Amino acid sequence: MQSLSLAKRKFFARLQEKKFRDAEHLFVAEGLRTVRELLQHPRSQNNLVALLITTAQAETFSIPQSFTTRSFAASAADLRAICDTSEPQGIVGIFRQLVVEKEHVFASVATKTRALIIALDGLQDPGNVGTVIRTAAWFGIDAMIASAATADFFNPKTVRAAAGSLYALPLIRSTSLANDLATLKLSGFTFYAAALEGMDVRGVRPAEKSLVMIGNEGNGIAAELLGAADVKIKIEGDREAVESLNAAVAAGILMSLFAK
Amino acid sequence: MQSLSLAKRKFFARLQEKKFRDAEHLFVAEGLRTVRELLQHPRSQNNLVALLITTAQAETFSIPQSFTTRSFAASAADLRAICDTSEPQGIVGIFRQLVVEKEHVFASVATKTRALIIALDGLQDPGNVGTVIRTAAWFGIDAMIASAATADFFNPKTVRAAAGSLYALPLIRSTSLANDLATLKLSGFTFYAAALEGMDVRGVRPAEKSLVMIGNEGNGIAAELLGAADVKIKIEGDREAVESLNAAVAAGILMSLFAK
Repeated sequence: MQSLSLAKRKFFARLQEKKFRDAEHLFVAEGLRTVRELLQHPRSQNNLVALLITTAQAETFSIPQSFTTRSFAASAADLRAICDTSEPQGIVGIFRQLVVEKEHVFASVATKTRALIIALDGLQDPGNVGTVIRTAAWFGIDAMIASAATADFFNPKTVRAAAGSLYALPLIRSTSLANDLATLKLSGFTFYAAALEGMDVRGVRPAEKSLVMIGNEGNGIAAELLGAADVKIKIEGDREAVESLNAAVAAGILMSLFAK
Repeated sequence: MQSLSLAKRKFFARLQEKKFRDAEHLFVAEGLRTVRELLQHPRSQNNLVALLITTAQAETFSIPQSFTTRSFAASAADLRAICDTSEPQGIVGIFRQLVVEKEHVFASVATKTRALIIALDGLQDPGNVGTVIRTAAWFGIDAMIASAATADFFNPKTVRAAAGSLYALPLIRSTSLANDLATLKLSGFTFYAAALEGMDVRGVRPAEKSLVMIGNEGNGIAAELLGAADVKIKIEGDREAVESLNAAVAAGILMSLFAK
């Protein structure tokens, strides 16, 4: 294992800022479970930049052969400086963000006869966003697209909740969901929007090519987007008992119904 | 508003310990959203013990008339001493745990022709447990029953994730899930167990009286319980892409399929 230079430590610590993460196309995975899950994905071979590990953790965690040259000995203080969590369990991974060309993804789904895309408009809790990514990976969703107001895909809390699924599907950050929606509708997608005034989703027979949009935890989907919906859908429930479902649970139920 | 005595502050601070919470049949709700959601439930009328509020928060939060005699002025330091979160947003509620007689609940579901019970065996993340309670409330589930190894219903993180639904359904802590399961089977329940080796849940037609059990995040349901299952079920997915679904999402999908 190499030792961690001060310059590297400084550089990695700056990855706590979203701007810097995006400029460098990197993200930080904190803790044993998260690092282990990401390393299991074949894409990590090319995309692990550095594995930072304390001597205590190195005693029990066996670094896979192919990653040894990218491993650095770090102190607990080093890790605390780089991490969002106060207790990163002696291990942190620095990974490359998957480069996703939106035009490429859109062209690819345009040629398909069956596809499912999940869109997030303003989901603010990074844990929810990570859980939606994890669920989308499980159901083999073709792509996820999120408005600018949605929590960062590469926030440490998102990374943790995604449980190693960040390389499993194309994640697209949209500067205009309305424009992207129009493009996808032209290539045959039916746009389903989750909304309180929607119809009971159990009565809906999903189109072969579906785009399902989930809105903000409190306010739902923005009005201009909702207006473009082909079908508004909702998950029936008892609003006297509780105000709403958790957004990641709602997204999970919808994905389970729309996934082929 | 009354002032908060030192004795009361000490008493409330001890509610961070599970033992003390259970002995006193109380729990702590931290933060504006959680307190507000709980106060909306009619049961809070009889079950709010104390509302602790800083002068800053009291300027914007209007205390409902019926709760004014139970409201106390607290400092930020008071709240930090009582809370699990470091930033309780100037408001904390102390509530009574709903008293649930297991025999009464079992007798009630025994007489029903249709019912759905959710059982948790060893779910360890309090956020997941709270989210499952919230989802169960949404779908009007008849009762939830949890093994001793499952996270506390009244952990502050559970309370937060439950989003005001803690009074919406009977929550039962079981000392022997195996015994309780046997009792419920005798009164006509079919026992569905979530397990990797189960059948695709989409092919299952739920029985009129169903008990659906979800296991531990990593290890699933204990072998002795799994052996008693009438039907093992799973949510089909891509295990190459991600190891598993989040437990609360999996529970949500199953509840959406089994709820009538």
